[in-house]
Amino acid sequence: MNPNFLQIIDILGTFAFAVSGAFSAMEKKLDPFGVLVLAFVTAIGGGTLRDILIGDLPVSWLKNETTTILIFVSAICAMFFAGFLKRFPITLFVFDAFGLGLFTIYGIGKGIQLHFSTGICIALGTITACFGGVTRDVLLNNVPLLFRKEIYALACVAGGLIYFAFKGLQIDPDLSRILCILIIVTIRIIAVKFKLSLPLFYSQKEKL
Amino acid sequence: MNPNFLQIIDILGTFAFAVSGAFSAMEKKLDPFGVLVLAFVTAIGGGTLRDILIGDLPVSWLKNETTTILIFVSAICAMFFAGFLKRFPITLFVFDAFGLGLFTIYGIGKGIQLHFSTGICIALGTITACFGGVTRDVLLNNVPLLFRKEIYALACVAGGLIYFAFKGLQIDPDLSRILCILIIVTIRIIAVKFKLSLPLFYSQKEKL
Amino acid sequence: MNPNFLQIIDILGTFAFAVSGAFSAMEKKLDPFGVLVLAFVTAIGGGTLRDILIGDLPVSWLKNETTTILIFVSAICAMFFAGFLKRFPITLFVFDAFGLGLFTIYGIGKGIQLHFSTGICIALGTITACFGGVTRDVLLNNVPLLFRKEIYALACVAGGLIYFAFKGLQIDPDLSRILCILIIVTIRIIAVKFKLSLPLFYSQKEKL
Repeated sequence: MNPNFLQIIDILGTFAFAVSGAFSAMEKKLDPFGVLVLAFVTAIGGGTLRDILIGDLPVSWLKNETTTILIFVSAICAMFFAGFLKRFPITLFVFDAFGLGLFTIYGIGKGIQLHFSTGICIALGTITACFGGVTRDVLLNNVPLLFRKEIYALACVAGGLIYFAFKGLQIDPDLSRILCILIIVTIRIIAVKFKLSLPLFYSQKEKL
Repeated sequence: MNPNFLQIIDILGTFAFAVSGAFSAMEKKLDPFGVLVLAFVTAIGGGTLRDILIGDLPVSWLKNETTTILIFVSAICAMFFAGFLKRFPITLFVFDAFGLGLFTIYGIGKGIQLHFSTGICIALGTITACFGGVTRDVLLNNVPLLFRKEIYALACVAGGLIYFAFKGLQIDPDLSRILCILIIVTIRIIAVKFKLSLPLFYSQKEKL
Repeated sequence: MNPNFLQIIDILGTFAFAVSGAFSAMEKKLDPFGVLVLAFVTAIGGGTLRDILIGDLPVSWLKNETTTILIFVSAICAMFFAGFLKRFPITLFVFDAFGLGLFTIYGIGKGIQLHFSTGICIALGTITACFGGVTRDVLLNNVPLLFRKEIYALACVAGGLIYFAFKGLQIDPDLSRILCILIIVTIRIIAVKFKLSLPLFYSQKEKL
């Protein structure tokens, strides 16, 4: 696959994740250092947990300063240009959706490399894409949005299943990666546009 | 020891832990994906932290699909048969107590294998048994129940101490494992039945 | 450097961190086991995360019983002598500041040993010093104090930068370590004395 294409998505996705972390921190009135930490944790949390679980240590962002600098710049941008950035919610949402797709496919790729089973690979992809947001919410003392929001993690799972279906059909890996990212982005857009979410199951006590 | 016997306890314990995670998630009205994640985290959280701390990576559930499938099925059960399962609170409690005992002994066993000291082995056993519930509570934005509930983690510590006492007395390891699991179960049953909990120490400020 | 000097700071810092964890737990009325766990997590949380991220496993407190025993004793002290200890808030604050300084320099040292870049080393030092307090706050269901308090993590970052400046100037490593610890302590004392904190950036929505 054209590495530049993937890299651009990676940069935009990391930027969107970092900005989302920074905005959440500012809403809780954290100080600038807190904003920086939250931007960081949101952007690298998922990949970090994945690397720890599979034992690929030191974790990747320790070995690659580019990510660290990119997140730093994103957090500064979020603090100084909050008003400006908030005028483009759809752009940020689309970046976020691409980040979600890319991180899922990236996590799955690492799982395949280490010969994990299909189910585990999809779980690793979903963790890579979603766990940063979960850590952000836990640090800010919220119930993770992931568990309450329109189809989010499920988009990753769906994208992962389709990726393995394509693999079974021997479709070119690069093509199937791009297709899966686009599928995840599409699911997210449809889910948010039509406010789709999973039906709830309440425990009996709650129903009364 | 009869491996089937231990395996049955493992399955029942994992089931009880997963169901407890799923029920907590449903009480907070998470969506089905959130319920699934909470079931998962509650059942494998303790073993995962233990494996990370001792550096036995990739963590065990990545290498063993059975656990993953079992938890998946448990969460589905919890969602569809919540009303039915809630009619058997004592059964679920007993499963949970057996899970607690087994996970403690299992964690201690891993510590002994790696030649850690007695205190560290007991800490590892307690972490294995208790940390899943702590993660569940943190994700759901509660102060961990563990820190407020009738003798829970302490049952694990007591079981662990007795295990090493038996080891010192050169009692057959298999027998002493079974005895320790039963002791932990008994402590839990007595603690819950008589609502035993540790006396509180308040900081002076609080007393006023 | 005189190892006794560093060891004494290490003991006092660990004591201060453990006591701070225990006091926070008592304020939330946790049971004694909870107090013990919180003391433990506050004192070893930062070093544990650092060791996991860089892959130096098993984490250091598993290999060194002294720390475990020290924390245990600190937590017991905190429970029995809360009233007495609370009469010396400045002493505890100074211990904590020295702990912060030492843990930062210690974390940076581990990073240098593994040939990480300057930025990453400072991040590792800051994580070592600060993450224990973050875990304490997350477990107790508070938004981490770190993100809201007078210059805390920033003191670590500043100390780290100065350490590398000294290194560039080829100042004796032992001397520069001691100087950096003192600088971090001084920054903390000035920040708390004059109630310094970082200016806040609010998101536009918040300003209305």
